[in-house]
Amino acid sequence: MTQKRVYFFGNGQAEGNAGLKELLGGKGANLAEMTNLGVPVPPGFTIATSVCGEYYANEGKWPEGLEAEVNEHIARLEAAMDAKLGDHSRPLLVSVRSGAAVSMPGMMDTVLNLGLNDDVVAGIIERTGNARFAWDIYRRFIDMFGDVVMGCDHEHFEHVLDSAKKAAGVKLDNELSADQLAKVVDRYKAVYKKHVGEMFPQSGREQLTHAIDAVFGSWNSARAVKYRQLNEIAGLLGTAVNVQAMVFGNMGDDCGTGVCFTRNPSTGKKEFYGEFLMNAQGEDVVAGIRTPLELTGLKKIMPPAYQELTDIMTRLDTHYRDMQDMEFTIQESKLYILQTRNGKRTAEAAVKVAVDMVKEGLITEAEAITRVTPAQVDRLLHPHFDAKATRKVIASGLPASPGAAVGQVVFNAETAEAWRDKHKKVILCRVETSPEDIGGMDAAQGILTARGGMTSHAAVVARGMGKCCVAGVGDIHIDYKTKKFTAGKITVKEGDWISLDGTAGQVILGQVPTVEPKLSGDFGKFMKFCDDVRTIGIRTNADTPADATRARDFGAEGIGLCRTEHMFFEGDRIWAVREMILAAEDYSAMIEKLAVAQDKKEQTEISKEYAPAKKQFEGALKKLLPYQRKDFVGIFKAMAGLPVTIRLLDPPLHEFLPQDAKSQAEMAKRLQVTPARVKKEVENLHEFNPMLGHRGCRLAVTYPAIYRMQTRAIIEAAIAVKKLRKVVKPEIMIPLVGEVKELQFVKQAILDEIQQVFKEKKTEIDFMVGTMIEVPRAALTADEIAGEAEFFSFGTNDLTQMTMGFSRDDAGKFLGDYVLHGLYEKDPFQSLDQVGVGKLVKMGIELGRSVRHDLKIGICGEHGGDPASIAFCYKVGMNYVSCSPFRVPIARLAAAQATMKNVKDATL
Amino acid sequence: MTQKRVYFFGNGQAEGNAGLKELLGGKGANLAEMTNLGVPVPPGFTIATSVCGEYYANEGKWPEGLEAEVNEHIARLEAAMDAKLGDHSRPLLVSVRSGAAVSMPGMMDTVLNLGLNDDVVAGIIERTGNARFAWDIYRRFIDMFGDVVMGCDHEHFEHVLDSAKKAAGVKLDNELSADQLAKVVDRYKAVYKKHVGEMFPQSGREQLTHAIDAVFGSWNSARAVKYRQLNEIAGLLGTAVNVQAMVFGNMGDDCGTGVCFTRNPSTGKKEFYGEFLMNAQGEDVVAGIRTPLELTGLKKIMPPAYQELTDIMTRLDTHYRDMQDMEFTIQESKLYILQTRNGKRTAEAAVKVAVDMVKEGLITEAEAITRVTPAQVDRLLHPHFDAKATRKVIASGLPASPGAAVGQVVFNAETAEAWRDKHKKVILCRVETSPEDIGGMDAAQGILTARGGMTSHAAVVARGMGKCCVAGVGDIHIDYKTKKFTAGKITVKEGDWISLDGTAGQVILGQVPTVEPKLSGDFGKFMKFCDDVRTIGIRTNADTPADATRARDFGAEGIGLCRTEHMFFEGDRIWAVREMILAAEDYSAMIEKLAVAQDKKEQTEISKEYAPAKKQFEGALKKLLPYQRKDFVGIFKAMAGLPVTIRLLDPPLHEFLPQDAKSQAEMAKRLQVTPARVKKEVENLHEFNPMLGHRGCRLAVTYPAIYRMQTRAIIEAAIAVKKLRKVVKPEIMIPLVGEVKELQFVKQAILDEIQQVFKEKKTEIDFMVGTMIEVPRAALTADEIAGEAEFFSFGTNDLTQMTMGFSRDDAGKFLGDYVLHGLYEKDPFQSLDQVGVGKLVKMGIELGRSVRHDLKIGICGEHGGDPASIAFCYKVGMNYVSCSPFRVPIARLAAAQATMKNVKDATL
Repeated sequence: MTQKRVYFFGNGQAEGNAGLKELLGGKGANLAEMTNLGVPVPPGFTIATSVCGEYYANEGKWPEGLEAEVNEHIARLEAAMDAKLGDHSRPLLVSVRSGAAVSMPGMMDTVLNLGLNDDVVAGIIERTGNARFAWDIYRRFIDMFGDVVMGCDHEHFEHVLDSAKKAAGVKLDNELSADQLAKVVDRYKAVYKKHVGEMFPQSGREQLTHAIDAVFGSWNSARAVKYRQLNEIAGLLGTAVNVQAMVFGNMGDDCGTGVCFTRNPSTGKKEFYGEFLMNAQGEDVVAGIRTPLELTGLKKIMPPAYQELTDIMTRLDTHYRDMQDMEFTIQESKLYILQTRNGKRTAEAAVKVAVDMVKEGLITEAEAITRVTPAQVDRLLHPHFDAKATRKVIASGLPASPGAAVGQVVFNAETAEAWRDKHKKVILCRVETSPEDIGGMDAAQGILTARGGMTSHAAVVARGMGKCCVAGVGDIHIDYKTKKFTAGKITVKEGDWISLDGTAGQVILGQVPTVEPKLSGDFGKFMKFCDDVRTIGIRTNADTPADATRARDFGAEGIGLCRTEHMFFEGDRIWAVREMILAAEDYSAMIEKLAVAQDKKEQTEISKEYAPAKKQFEGALKKLLPYQRKDFVGIFKAMAGLPVTIRLLDPPLHEFLPQDAKSQAEMAKRLQVTPARVKKEVENLHEFNPMLGHRGCRLAVTYPAIYRMQTRAIIEAAIAVKKLRKVVKPEIMIPLVGEVKELQFVKQAILDEIQQVFKEKKTEIDFMVGTMIEVPRAALTADEIAGEAEFFSFGTNDLTQMTMGFSRDDAGKFLGDYVLHGLYEKDPFQSLDQVGVGKLVKMGIELGRSVRHDLKIGICGEHGGDPASIAFCYKVGMNYVSCSPFRVPIARLAAAQATMKNVKDATL
Repeated sequence: MTQKRVYFFGNGQAEGNAGLKELLGGKGANLAEMTNLGVPVPPGFTIATSVCGEYYANEGKWPEGLEAEVNEHIARLEAAMDAKLGDHSRPLLVSVRSGAAVSMPGMMDTVLNLGLNDDVVAGIIERTGNARFAWDIYRRFIDMFGDVVMGCDHEHFEHVLDSAKKAAGVKLDNELSADQLAKVVDRYKAVYKKHVGEMFPQSGREQLTHAIDAVFGSWNSARAVKYRQLNEIAGLLGTAVNVQAMVFGNMGDDCGTGVCFTRNPSTGKKEFYGEFLMNAQGEDVVAGIRTPLELTGLKKIMPPAYQELTDIMTRLDTHYRDMQDMEFTIQESKLYILQTRNGKRTAEAAVKVAVDMVKEGLITEAEAITRVTPAQVDRLLHPHFDAKATRKVIASGLPASPGAAVGQVVFNAETAEAWRDKHKKVILCRVETSPEDIGGMDAAQGILTARGGMTSHAAVVARGMGKCCVAGVGDIHIDYKTKKFTAGKITVKEGDWISLDGTAGQVILGQVPTVEPKLSGDFGKFMKFCDDVRTIGIRTNADTPADATRARDFGAEGIGLCRTEHMFFEGDRIWAVREMILAAEDYSAMIEKLAVAQDKKEQTEISKEYAPAKKQFEGALKKLLPYQRKDFVGIFKAMAGLPVTIRLLDPPLHEFLPQDAKSQAEMAKRLQVTPARVKKEVENLHEFNPMLGHRGCRLAVTYPAIYRMQTRAIIEAAIAVKKLRKVVKPEIMIPLVGEVKELQFVKQAILDEIQQVFKEKKTEIDFMVGTMIEVPRAALTADEIAGEAEFFSFGTNDLTQMTMGFSRDDAGKFLGDYVLHGLYEKDPFQSLDQVGVGKLVKMGIELGRSVRHDLKIGICGEHGGDPASIAFCYKVGMNYVSCSPFRVPIARLAAAQATMKNVKDATL
C-alpha cells in the first residue's frame, strides 16, 4: 500500500493537524489545525512535502498514483464548495501555494485565481454583474500563471498594461474600465502565446497540474537553494502544495481583507493589532496604493465579523500558545481565515510575549526561553537606527560590533579625545587600530577601519566596549595626511558627519536618527528564566573595574579573561614599558650568559658588566608595579568575591613601541636616547609573523621578571582586598603555552614570587595557576599540560588562527571568496569551526580531564559570545564560557537554550 | 642475597665480559673482556654502575655491604699483584677511573697513582733508586687528588710549581731535580691542608674511599648532566668505578706508553696506526711537550713488545669486529693494555671500515649500515675547512646549511652576480633573503643572514643548492647604505674576505683553507647496502632540471616537491607576474560580481566593465605558460619516468612585488603605471602575518586562472615528453588545504583544465591530484580530505609552525632561550616534534587511510632530510620522504637504519 499523499481539509474536519508540520508544511498543517478547531477556513487539500521528494527522485515526473489522488481530492473540494473547476455558473477557483516545514518567505511560488478561463469569466460577469472584477482577476491570473508557472517574464505583461493605461490616459490599474481590461486580457493571451509557445490553457485541470509542477520546481530554484544555505535550513523533504478554494475580498463593499496579530508585534503588548482594506484583494494591502485601516476600525464597519475575528484570534493565541500572525478575507460579509502562523516580532516584543505567556500560564519558563533568539537579545542591548529613516550607504564592511553610531569623522586617537573633551561626537576612522588607539576608541561613538576582520583589534576592543564598529571596509581609502577618506567618488573629510550601522556593517553619509535601547523589567524576568535552566557558567572578558561592573550588571558570574596589556598603555605607564624594552636585549643577554657561566667568578663579571641594563629593566618594572596593583585592587573589588582569571602579558613587545618616525623622535627625546637607538630597537623587534612570534609566555621564558612583577601586583592586590574582609581568588593564567616544560618553567617563577610575597606580607591567600589552550600543540598534549595547570581556558581566537592557518587580520581578503563559493558556511572567527578546531577542543578537554578529572575548563575567545559556539562548549563539558560584557545576556540565553536542547534530545 | 656489586679482573680471568657494558660501563666491560682473551691487562676490579644509582638513592652514602666487598677485592688485587696498599717495599698503586655504558669523554673524574704516601715514596726511591720519578708521581698525585677528589683547585698547585720553577731558574716541569720536587711536595701538602682543611691522607684505603666517592659524585656534576642532555643520553644507571693496578711507562728507558688504532682512523685503511713515547706517562703523550713517535718506530726500539702489540691489535679488531682505539704502557719491557674501545673516525674512514669489514667477512651488510652516522655522510658531501687552520671567529649563528665557504663580502644579489661574472668568489650577506635574491645566492659561495632560522628562506634555498649558509647571526648589524657590517668592534666592508662554516654556524674573518670532499667507490657500495635494507622511498625536493639530475645522481627515486614559485622569478617572467598582480584586484572583483549577478544582462554588463582587467590578467598568464611548460619538460626529462610531485603556486602575491621605492619606480616605468599605483598595490597586498595569509590554494579560490595555467603547463609538458616515448606521471599537489570543500573547488578547476588540454591535444596521460597536509585542520579532517586527494604530502615546515605557533623566521629570537633552559631539546624545525606535531601526522595518516586504504603518503618539509624524523616517518607508515638533493644519501642511510632498528625491535 502506498502512503497517503494528499490531505483534505474543509467543513470543520481535516485529515491533518498542526503536529504534521514536517509532512504538510507549516501552512498546510495550520490550515488543517484551524479547520479542526472550527475556524472558518476555505476548504482545500495539501499535497505532502514527501511528494516533492518523490517528484525529484522521479526526475520531475509525478509519482504513480498521485494523479488519481489529486483528482479524487479535487472532486471532494468541488463537492464541499458545491462548485466545479471550469463550470460556467458555479466555477471553482483555487489558490496554489507552496509551504515547507520551515518558513522561507517569498522564496517559492504562489498562484491565485486558478480555474479562470474565458467561459468562467463570462459566467462570473453574469452572476455578479461585476465585469470589472471578473476581467481584473482574469488579467491578474494570466500574468501570474504566465510568469510564475510558465516562465514568461512579468515585465512583458506589465508592458501591455502600461500601454493600455497610457492609451486610456489613466495612471492607476483600477482606473481602467471593464472593457479596457477585457482588451488587456486579449493582449495578455497574445503575449503568453508568443513567449510560452502555446495558447493559454483553458482547462482548469491542466492549469492546476502546471501550477503544482511549478511549486515543486520552485523548491530547487537558485534563490531557494541559496536561502536554505544562508539560513542553514537542511534535512527538509521538500515543499508541500496547498490547493485551496479562493475567497474574494474585492467583490464589493461587504468584502474586505486584512492581516492581524494576536498581540502587538512591535511592543508585545496583549492587544488586537492589524490592518485591513474593504473591497480589496490581499495583494492590495501589501502594494500600498490605498492606505489600510487599523483593525479596530472593523468593529464599526462590520461588528459581527470583527467579533468573530477577535474571538478566533483569542482562541488561536491560546491554542498555539504563541502570538499569531493571521490573514483573513471577508467575502460578502462572511469571514474566512486564510493563514495563521507564529508572528515575527521585535526583540522587545519577543521578551514581553514570552514573559506574559508564562504569567498567563500558557507556557512554562523553559518554553519561554526558546521564544527569544540570542540575536534579539543582542539587538535589545544596543542603540539602533530609526527604521523609518533613509540611509545613503557609501560603503560596506564587516558588522564587527553591533549598534548604531553617529559622529564627525576624525582620523586619529588624539583628535578623537580632544573633540570628545569639547563635547563633540566623533567617529574614529583608522586603516587599522592598535593598542595605542584605545583612548581614542573610548572617546568615539563608533569605529571604522579599512582593514581587519571580525576579530581584529578594533573589532575585539569595540565589542568589549559595547561600541559600534564597522571593520575591514576595503572600499574606502584613508589618507591620514590630507585627513580624508574616499569611498568610490565620495570624499569624506575630517569633521564631516557619518553614521555607522554596526549590525549591518554599513557606512552611511550624514546623521541617521537613532533609537536608544530600553531594558524593561520583563527583560530581567526573562534572564532569570534562563539562569534557572542553564548549567554552564557565564563569565566576562573585562580589563577594567568599569567593564567588570557593567558585566556584573549584565549577570556575569566572574571574569574569564582579564587582559593585562591594555594596562601597559595608560598614561605614563607606557614610558616605563618603553624604558624596559630599551634595556631588554642586554637584560636577556645577561640572563643567557649567567646561565652558561662556568663559575662564580665569571658570573660576578657578567653581573658587573650588565648592571646598568639590569637596573634599567627591573627599575622600569618597579615603576609599573603600583599601577598594576591598583588595577587589580579595582577589579577584585568590583567582582566582590567572584572568580577573576588574569592573563599575564601576551602581546609582543614591539606593540609597545611607536612605529612612525615622529613618535619615535618623541620617545627618544623623552627617554634621552638617540632617535637611531629607538629605530634600531623597533627594527630589532620587528617580526615577520607577529602572531607566531615572541609573545605570550615566550616573553616570560626570556624575561621572567615581567611575569614576576605582574604576579606580585596580583597577589599584593588580593591581600589588600582581603584585608577589607572581601573574598578574592585570583586565577593566574599563562598564555600561549605549547609544551608542558615551558609551563613548568614559567609557573615556577610565578610560584617563587608568590611565596616571596606571602613571606613579606606574612599572610597567604588562595590562588590558582592555569593556562590558556590556544596553541594546537597544547590541545594535542593537554594530558601533559594538565599535570601542571589547575585550569584550562581555551583561547579559540588564536586556536582558530593556528588550526586553520588564517590570520584574523588578513583573512578578510579571502574569506569573502570562501563564503561566496560556499567553502566555509560561516566566518570561523565568529562561530567556532566545530569540525576542525572543535575536534582539538574536545581532544584537549578529554586529555586534560584524563589526568585531572576535576579540571576547570572555560573558553575566553570571541566565540564565548556566539550562541552556536556556546552550545558546543556546553556539549563538550566546559564549566563556563567568557565573553565581552555586552554579550553576557546573550550568552546566558544561548547557554539556557543549549541546556534545554540537550534535555530534550536526551528524552527523545 | 644482595646482588654482586664488584667484578674482578686479572691473571687471565675476569668476572665480567664485553656483554656487561650496561653494568660495568664501557671501560670495565672491555677490561674484563680483554682479560678473558688473555690480553695483558693490569689486574683490578670494577664497581658496577648500579652501585652509583644506589649511592644516589642512599643520599651519597655507600650501600650496606659495599665496604666489605670493596675490601675483599682490594685483597684479591693485592694478592694478584703481590703488593699491598701503603706497603713500604711492595706498594700497590692504583688508578681510579669512571666509565659509563656510553662514552662521555672528559666528563667524569680520574685519579692516578693512588696509594702513594710519604712512606711509599721513600720505599720506591729505595727500590728503584729513581727519586725524581718517585717525587714526581707523588706531586702529581697530591695535585690530582686535591683537585679532583677534594675540590682544591688545580691552580693553587700550579702556582706553587711555577714559583718553584722560577726559583730554580727552569722552564719545564721535568727540569726540576728530585730535591726540588720533594720540596714542591711539601708545599703541595700545605696547600692541600689550607684549602681542604685537613692533612693530606696518608692511608691508601682512605684515599681510595674518597676517590670512589668522587667518581660517583662526578656522575651528576653540572657539566656531566649538561653533556648527557645535549647528547640525549638517558636511561643509564650511573658510572662504574674502575680500580686498576698502576703500571708505569716512565720508570726508565725500557718503559713507554702510547695509543694505537687497529686501522687508520683518518682514512679507514687497514694498517697499524698510533704513536708512543718512551719513558713517559700517558698524560705526556697528550700534553704535547715531547713529540711522540709513530707506532712503527716501536718495531725497531722494542721488537718483541711491538710484535705482541700488533698481534693483540689484530685479535681485538677481529674480536670486536670494529676498529679499536687502544692505550698501552710498557713497564720494564712488559706490555700492558690499559684500555680498548671502538675508535672514533672520520666520515671517510667510517665508510671504508664498514665496507672493508663486510669484504673481510667480519660483519654483515646490515651491520655495516649501523657503522656510519647520517652526520658523517653529510660531512662527506660538503667541503670543510682544514682542521689544522686557525680561525678568527667573529660571530656565530645557526648552522643553516653545512659546508665551508670563503669569499669576498657583498651585500646584494646584483653585486654577487656581477662579481661572480668577473670570476670573484663572494659571500652574500643579507639581513634576510627573499626570492628575488635567488640569482645572487646561486652566484655566491655562501650566504650569511642576520635574521631567520633554520628554515628561513635563505636556509631552505641554500640547503637545496647544497650551498653553505650561516643564518640568523643576530650579533652582526648590516648597513646596506654604507655597505658594511659590524660584529662587535670589528667592521667588515664590501670586498673584505670572510669564511663561513655552515656546519658549525661560524663567521670567520679572512680566508680559511678548505678541503674538498671526495666520494670513493666505497661510498657507492655503502649506499647500496642501505638501499638493500631500506623499505621507505627517498625522493627529493627539486625545482630545476639541474637539481633533479643532481638528486638522481645521489639516488633520489622521484621528486617529492617541485616548487613552482621560483619559476616565477627568472628573467622576464617576473614582469608578466607583476602585470598580472596589477590586474588582480579588479579581476577578482569581476569574479565575485559575476557570481552574485542576478541575470545574464547583469553578467554581460559586468564582463564589459571588467574586460580590460580580464585581458591584462589572463594575458599575463598566457605569457607565463610557455616558460612554465619548458620548465616542466626539462624536469620530466631529467627524472625519466620517476614520479614528479609538483606543488602549485604557494607564496602570497606580495612576494613578487618590489618592496623598496627604487625598485617600485623601476616597475612603474616598465609597466607604464604611476609609482603611486605600484605603491598602492604593495600596500593593498600587505599582510600582518603573511604565513597565515592569502597564499597556497587560497590564491586559487580567488584566482582559479593561475592554477589552471600551471596545470595546463604541466599536462602539456607531460604530453610533449610522452611523445618522446618517455614515461611521465605528474602528481599535481595543492598546497595549504584546510577543508575538503576548498580542495574540491580547486581540484575541479584543475580537472576541467586537464580535460580541456586532453581534448585539444587529442591524447591523454596518467596523472594524480593530491594535497599537502600542512594546516593542522587538514590533519584533523584528513578522512574527509582523503575522499578527494589521491595522495598526501605532509608539509611539516608549515605544520610545525602552525601546530607550535612559531614562525620559523621569528623563532630564532626565543628558541635559543628554550634550548638554554631545556624546554625544547631540539629545534623543532630541524627535527620533527614527534610528541605534538607527530601526533597530528599520525592522526592524519590514520584518518586518511581509513577512507582510502592505499593512500600514498610522503613528507616534503625540511624534516625529510633529518634522520630522527625519517625514522618517525618510517614508523608511522609513510611511503616516502623527500629532501633536498644533498641530503638524499643521508636520508637513504637514515631510512635503512630505521628499518633495521625496527626489525631488531620486533625480534626482541
